[in-house]
Amino acid sequence: MVQIGDLGERQLIDDFRTFIRPEGRVGPGDDAAVIGKDVVVTTDIVTFDRHFPIGMSFEQFGWYAAAVNFSDLAAMGARPMGFTAALALPPTLDSQNAYDIMSGIDQCAEFCGTGIVGGDTKTGPGIVAGTAIGSMDGRAPMLRSGARPGDIVAVTGPLGGPAAGYAAIENGLDYPEATETLFMPVPRVAEGVALAESGIVSSCIDLSDGLGTALNTICKASNVGIDVEFSFLQHETFVDEISEKTGISLEKLLIGWGGEYELMFTADPNRLKKLYDSEIEFFIIGMVNDSGKAELIKDGKRSTIDYGEY
Amino acid sequence: MVQIGDLGERQLIDDFRTFIRPEGRVGPGDDAAVIGKDVVVTTDIVTFDRHFPIGMSFEQFGWYAAAVNFSDLAAMGARPMGFTAALALPPTLDSQNAYDIMSGIDQCAEFCGTGIVGGDTKTGPGIVAGTAIGSMDGRAPMLRSGARPGDIVAVTGPLGGPAAGYAAIENGLDYPEATETLFMPVPRVAEGVALAESGIVSSCIDLSDGLGTALNTICKASNVGIDVEFSFLQHETFVDEISEKTGISLEKLLIGWGGEYELMFTADPNRLKKLYDSEIEFFIIGMVNDSGKAELIKDGKRSTIDYGEY
Repeated sequence: MVQIGDLGERQLIDDFRTFIRPEGRVGPGDDAAVIGKDVVVTTDIVTFDRHFPIGMSFEQFGWYAAAVNFSDLAAMGARPMGFTAALALPPTLDSQNAYDIMSGIDQCAEFCGTGIVGGDTKTGPGIVAGTAIGSMDGRAPMLRSGARPGDIVAVTGPLGGPAAGYAAIENGLDYPEATETLFMPVPRVAEGVALAESGIVSSCIDLSDGLGTALNTICKASNVGIDVEFSFLQHETFVDEISEKTGISLEKLLIGWGGEYELMFTADPNRLKKLYDSEIEFFIIGMVNDSGKAELIKDGKRSTIDYGEY
Repeated sequence: MVQIGDLGERQLIDDFRTFIRPEGRVGPGDDAAVIGKDVVVTTDIVTFDRHFPIGMSFEQFGWYAAAVNFSDLAAMGARPMGFTAALALPPTLDSQNAYDIMSGIDQCAEFCGTGIVGGDTKTGPGIVAGTAIGSMDGRAPMLRSGARPGDIVAVTGPLGGPAAGYAAIENGLDYPEATETLFMPVPRVAEGVALAESGIVSSCIDLSDGLGTALNTICKASNVGIDVEFSFLQHETFVDEISEKTGISLEKLLIGWGGEYELMFTADPNRLKKLYDSEIEFFIIGMVNDSGKAELIKDGKRSTIDYGEY
C-alpha cells in the first residue's frame, strides 16, 4: 500500500489528472476548464491549516478562498458569473467567525462582479472548497500553450508583495501594507477580460505558484523558452526594505514565491497598441525565445529560473 | 460566543442563505442555482464521517459524492456539462482508495453524460466537495414554487430502497440489492430533462431528504397542500420484507427517510399525455390542493406527513 501522504500532493493531483477530460475545448493543465460553448469553471480548496497565516482575519480568509478561484477565471479571460462555497467547519467555531468567512467570500465575489449562488456546510476541520463559474462571452480562452518566440512577456502589476508580507510576519516585522497583499490578493478579473478581448495575447497564467513556476509552466506548455530581464521586474514598494531587513534575496521574493495573484501573459509585440488602448496596467518583463528554458538576465549574467517552492 | 455546533447545521445553512443572491432567475431554496442565460450549478459536500456506511466501497463513495450533485441538476431539468471534485483526504489513505474515489466520481459523471473537468486535492479528514454544472438548453428550470391545486403529484420510481438498505445494515441483515440502492443512488438526469422538456411540470424536487421533507418543502414553497394516497406508493421489492424483519414501519421507510434520489414533481393533469409520450417511468402518488399541509391517506384515514428526520 502506498499512502497518499508518501506520494505527495503534487503527484496525486498529477495522477488524478488522468480522470479529467476536456468536455469542451480546454482540459487539464490550464487554470480552469472550458465546458460547453463558453462556460469556464474552476475549483480550489483552502484550509485553516495551510492558508490562515497569523494575523489574517476570518473575513480575509473568506476573501482569499474566493480570490484564488476568481484568479483562475481571470487567467482564462472569463467574466465571473457565480461562486459556490462548500464549507467544512469545526463545530466549536464561533458563529460570528463563520459569518465573517461568508462575508469575506461575498465581498470578493462582489468585487469580481458576481455573488455567491450556492453552497453547502458540514462539520470539518476548517475547509472552504470554492468553485467559480464564468463565461467567455464569445472570447477565445487564454491558454498556457500559445506562447511563440518573439512574443513579449508581461505581468499585470508589481511583484513580491505577498512573499515580503509573509517574510515580515515570520520575522516579526510590522508591515501591514505587505501583509495586506498576502491576506487579500486582488484577482485580476477586469485585466483578464481585457487581455482576452484584445485578441493579441498568446498565453496567460496567474502567479499563484510564483513567477518562477509560471515561467516554467508556460515554457513547457508552449514548448518555448523565456528570458526575463531582472531590472524590468517592478517591486512592491516595501519589498526592498523587507528583503534588506530579513536577508531574503530580492530574487527569492520576486520570483521564487507563490501567493501572488497578478497575471503573466505573452503577446504579439507588433500589436501592443491594442493593450495600451485597453488602459490596463502591465509591465513587460522579458521575451519569448526558442531556448526551451526560463532564464534570468541580471547585470548581464544569465541564470536558470527554477520552479518556485510554493 | 455561539459555537456553530450549538447552532446546528440547518440553522447555519439558513443563516448563510442571506449571502446567497440570485444572479440569474433562480436563487436559494431550490435544488440548484440558475446563473446567466441557462447555466445551472450546485455544490454538495460528502464526508467519510457521515456518508460512508459500513460495506460501502471507496468507488461507491465517489459515485455517491457525484450522484448527490447530479440529482440536484436533475431536479431543475438541467443537462450536466461538467463536474469538479475538490478532495480533502487523509495522508494515511491508501492511494488505491483515493483513485477508487476518483473512479467512482468519473463513472457517475459518465453515466450522467459528462465528465470530471477540474479538481483540487488537499490534506483533510476525508471530504469530497463536488460541484455539478449543467445547462437548461433553453428549457425553463423546474422550481419548487410552481405547484397548483389540482396538479397531480408523482415520483420517478419505487421508494424505500435506501432506507431499507440502511435498516438492513443496522440490523445485520444481508440484502445486497437494498444496500446497493443506498450506496449507488441513480441521479434521474434523463428523467429531469424530459420532465422539464414536457412543459407541463409545475414543480420538482429530488427526494434526497426523503418524501416527507420533499412534500412539505413543495407545500411551503408553492403555498399549497398535498394529499398522498398510501396505496399509490410503489415499494422497492425488498422493502416490505425488511420492514417486517426489522419492525420498522413501511411509512417510515417510504416517507420518513432520506438518501432517496428519485424526483418528485407536480404536473397539469390535463396534459399528462406529454409525459406518457416521453417514455419516462413515473407513478402518481397524490394530488395538490389548497389545504396548506401534506397529508397521508391510508385505509381512508388522514394523518399529517412530517418533515423527515434525515
